[in-house]
Amino acid sequence: MKERTVWVVGMGPGGGLQMTAEAARVLKQCDVIVGYTVYVSLLRELFPEKEYRTTPMCREMERCRMAFEEARGGKTVAMVSGGDAGVYGMSGLMLELSAEYPDCTVRVVPGVTAALAGAAVLGAPLMHDFAVISLSDRMTPWEKIERRLQLAAAADFVICIYNPASRTRADYLRWACDVILKEAEPERICGLVRQIGRDGETARVLTLMELREEPVDMFTTVFIGNSTTRVIDGRMVTPRGYRIR
Amino acid sequence: MKERTVWVVGMGPGGGLQMTAEAARVLKQCDVIVGYTVYVSLLRELFPEKEYRTTPMCREMERCRMAFEEARGGKTVAMVSGGDAGVYGMSGLMLELSAEYPDCTVRVVPGVTAALAGAAVLGAPLMHDFAVISLSDRMTPWEKIERRLQLAAAADFVICIYNPASRTRADYLRWACDVILKEAEPERICGLVRQIGRDGETARVLTLMELREEPVDMFTTVFIGNSTTRVIDGRMVTPRGYRIR
Repeated sequence: MKERTVWVVGMGPGGGLQMTAEAARVLKQCDVIVGYTVYVSLLRELFPEKEYRTTPMCREMERCRMAFEEARGGKTVAMVSGGDAGVYGMSGLMLELSAEYPDCTVRVVPGVTAALAGAAVLGAPLMHDFAVISLSDRMTPWEKIERRLQLAAAADFVICIYNPASRTRADYLRWACDVILKEAEPERICGLVRQIGRDGETARVLTLMELREEPVDMFTTVFIGNSTTRVIDGRMVTPRGYRIR
Repeated sequence: MKERTVWVVGMGPGGGLQMTAEAARVLKQCDVIVGYTVYVSLLRELFPEKEYRTTPMCREMERCRMAFEEARGGKTVAMVSGGDAGVYGMSGLMLELSAEYPDCTVRVVPGVTAALAGAAVLGAPLMHDFAVISLSDRMTPWEKIERRLQLAAAADFVICIYNPASRTRADYLRWACDVILKEAEPERICGLVRQIGRDGETARVLTLMELREEPVDMFTTVFIGNSTTRVIDGRMVTPRGYRIR
């Protein structure tokens, strides 16, 4: 019998402006908020009266069990992810682990993921069919990532790249550009946004060859246009096909 | 010189619960809201004091020009899309047309798109790399849609399908399933959500072969799992790869 609900909440990028009404309502009514340290520190300012539980990065299983255990202890619990909890966030692992906590129901509250928020900053790059690919090979073999990049470019998808770099993966975006260059021209319009929704947010529109040389970090989201993407007044725009000439 | 800002706002799916704080703030401060009739009627309840301008479906250019003209008339204007304005919404066309209105700056406010909201209802289908594809051939040749479906399945992306049917495209989802069946097994886990965030929302988890026979309409969002997607306690879950056995 399900007696307890554990919420998994996407808080959107940045500090609260992009949070949905439902996410804010759930966080407001819960006792305990569990999350990765960076996101929790953003929330402490908005909801100072809550109890917070954190674990460092790469301790996801521990963090999830913490949430279920708090719920069993009688607390109303929300596990938070930046952006959307369902896109490289915590909702999948929470649902996988929920099999071990049959008295708990996991409910997911969606949020604005970096692909959508970054696209809005750049203009309208995702107006046609698109693919979202993470370059993190922590849990996916690079060969699979490479194949997805190449097929996505061959299919003329707009491509949005998450996790383009980390301290141990400095060259991954350059490698990804080299894979895409097998299918796309060097002048292909691309864009990147750093620190979406946070202080110091920056954006740049550039070509695929320029992107290859661009330093990026784990707080950067990258967009590779499709064959029709162009620059209009400094903005990155993929026409949907309404035939404006 | 840019004298006026025209806002393009994604209001999320349904009637307001999934709207972000920023979207609500922009709509609250504007004089005129322009949009497709269905979305506008949802907003009239939340913001009854605004002026509204609508055009029927398929009159997108006219609707965009209406927004720019209102802005030139001195009004603060927001063009609204359901979900996210940057995913098959109005931000692209607004930016394309903005070249004709050099005194106006277009600013885009992101929203929760149906892929994210539908995923949250089903469980966590988008936890790994995914592709978003519209089956509408109003502005894209079917051959291009077919090629994208096949390459996305070959790349083992989770696939989220928008516009799976309309009155004139009753069989398109069946055709899409047949394309995907060239690369994926008939038992592949799929899901669909109808009327996301609205009264009468329903969801179903089913196999690819069952999906082929399923009646859908333009208010349905469809998810095709990747090779690792499975059902956990009735929910559709794509593991990210944290190796839970």
